[in-house]
This record gives sequence, C-alpha cells and structure tokens, in this order.
Amino acid sequence: MNPEKQKALQSLKTAKGQIEGIIKMIEDERYCMDVSNQIVAAQALLKRSQILILKQHLNHCVKDAIQQNNWEEKNDEMMKVIEKIIT
Amino acid sequence: MNPEKQKALQSLKTAKGQIEGIIKMIEDERYCMDVSNQIVAAQALLKRSQILILKQHLNHCVKDAIQQNNWEEKNDEMMKVIEKIIT
Amino acid sequence: MNPEKQKALQSLKTAKGQIEGIIKMIEDERYCMDVSNQIVAAQALLKRSQILILKQHLNHCVKDAIQQNNWEEKNDEMMKVIEKIIT
Amino acid sequence: MNPEKQKALQSLKTAKGQIEGIIKMIEDERYCMDVSNQIVAAQALLKRSQILILKQHLNHCVKDAIQQNNWEEKNDEMMKVIEKIIT
Repeated sequence: MNPEKQKALQSLKTAKGQIEGIIKMIEDERYCMDVSNQIVAAQALLKRSQILILKQHLNHCVKDAIQQNNWEEKNDEMMKVIEKIIT
Repeated sequence: MNPEKQKALQSLKTAKGQIEGIIKMIEDERYCMDVSNQIVAAQALLKRSQILILKQHLNHCVKDAIQQNNWEEKNDEMMKVIEKIIT
Repeated sequence: MNPEKQKALQSLKTAKGQIEGIIKMIEDERYCMDVSNQIVAAQALLKRSQILILKQHLNHCVKDAIQQNNWEEKNDEMMKVIEKIIT
Repeated sequence: MNPEKQKALQSLKTAKGQIEGIIKMIEDERYCMDVSNQIVAAQALLKRSQILILKQHLNHCVKDAIQQNNWEEKNDEMMKVIEKIIT
C-alpha cells in the first residue's frame, strides 16, 4: 500500500472513532452544538482522506494510465468525482 | 429524543457503516475512484446529520433560550458552527 | 445600514472586482491554474459575505421576529438557506 | 478559446451580473434572506466555472504536459487547487 493510502486509512479510522463518539453523544443527550462541532471535525477527516486518495490516484493510477494510453478514461472518471465534491 | 436527533443518529450510524466499508475497500486495495465516490457518499450523510442537528437546535434549544433570555449566547454559539461549516 | 451589512457589501464589491479580473484573465488566455486559484479567492469572499449576512440576520431580523412572535417562520427561512449552503 | 473556457467565461459573466444585483439589494436594504439566497446562486456559478476550468486543464494542459514530460509538475499544481477547494 502506498503512503497516501496508508495515511487515508489512518484518517478514516480516526473518523470512524469520532463518529462512534458522536453517536454516543447524541444517545447521552449531550449538548447539540458540541455534537455539531464534532461533526465538523469528522468532516475534516473525511476531506483529508479524500485529498489523499485523489493525490495517490494522480500519482499512481493516472501515471500508469498514461503509459497504457487509457488516460482520458481515468481523466473523465476523476473529473466526475471532483465535480461531485465541488457541487 | 426529538425526531430530528433520531434521524441524525440514524444517518450517523449509516455513515459509520459506510466508513467501515471504505476502510475495508482500501485494505483490499480496491480501485481508488470507487473509494473516492464512497467518501463523497459518507460526507453527504454527515452533512445530512449536521443539518438535522442545527434544525433541532433552532427548534428546541434556541426556543428555550428565548424564554430564558439567554438567546444571544446561543446565537453566537450557532454562528460559530455555521462559520466553520461555510469556510 | 448595520456594520455586518457594510462589511458584506465591501466583500461583495471586492469579489466583483476579482471576478472582472478573472474574466479578463480568461480572455487574455492566461494560465488556467492561475484562473482556478483566483476563483477559489472569489469564492472565499462570497463565503465571507454569506457569513456576515447570516450573522446580522440572527442579530437583527431574528431578534425583531422574537419580539413580534413570528420567530418560527424566520427560523424555517434561515434553515432553508443553511441547508442549501451545506449540501 | 476551447469550449470549456468559453462556458466558464459565460458563467463568470453571469456571476458578475448577479453580484452587482446583490450589491444593489444590500444598498436598497432588501430582505437579508433574499440576499443570502442570491449569494448561494452566485456561488453555484463560480463552482460551475471552477469545474469547467479544471476539466479543460485536464483535457488540454495536462495532455500537453504528458507529451512534454513535465506532467508531474502540472499534477502537483492541480492537486494544490483541488486541496484548497475541498478544505
């Protein structure tokens, strides 16, 4: 596994732990603005994972695709993901 | 627990399951654009939870705060969360 | 005009100037990643304006609405905007 | 000018017109939630422009870079923009 994927995995595991914490907070009827702040923090971890996955996609998959001459397909695929993220 | 909190809880539990799935996808070296798309989906669930928590905050906590006359404090608190979400 | 509205107005005027600059950059066939970075900057100004408008809405309009007892309507209205911003 | 740039230019011109309208709305002391909704609309146009610029970057600049073998530099550059957009 490349280093970006390893870091993404770590972020996702932390995000999972945070979401478990948020679920417990709601079940314990904790104050909702504390819940909101924790959701913002979990979102930041998912964003970080997404950046790492896209980075390694460009560095590895797209590089391979260039050599195999099916780069345009990869390009369209990544652009669709970026479009979903932006809008 | 009010209905918005219940729905937020449900979304968070689904998000947790999705993130567990994404972790497994990366560990199994699944294709990274499929991973990216799943992260987008998990983000959407967290956004939904955030909207529900803010909605119930306005409907319940802020309503109570108005009656107890400490509404401005709640206002500042919510605005700080919204600011983090927007930027 | 309240201070938040004045600041929002200033941000929007700056954003307008930036967008005029971006239009010129594209017409002059300037490098597209420089264009992208300028769009990110203009977005940041619009986000700032949005935060200021929401802040003054909570501080002024919602306060008035509480006194006039039509607060729930304002609440729904603001929640719809926040929902659009988040999703 | 390629078709994506032309469409981006058109979106930016519309966004500029919208922002001029929003400035006038604030100066005329129009209702702030109407202002907020218009800011959301202007943001959507900037997002659309950004997507089009990134798309044409991948389709044209990155393609040229592959042929000239300086693709990794373009890659880093685009990733920095995407990182700013996501976070």
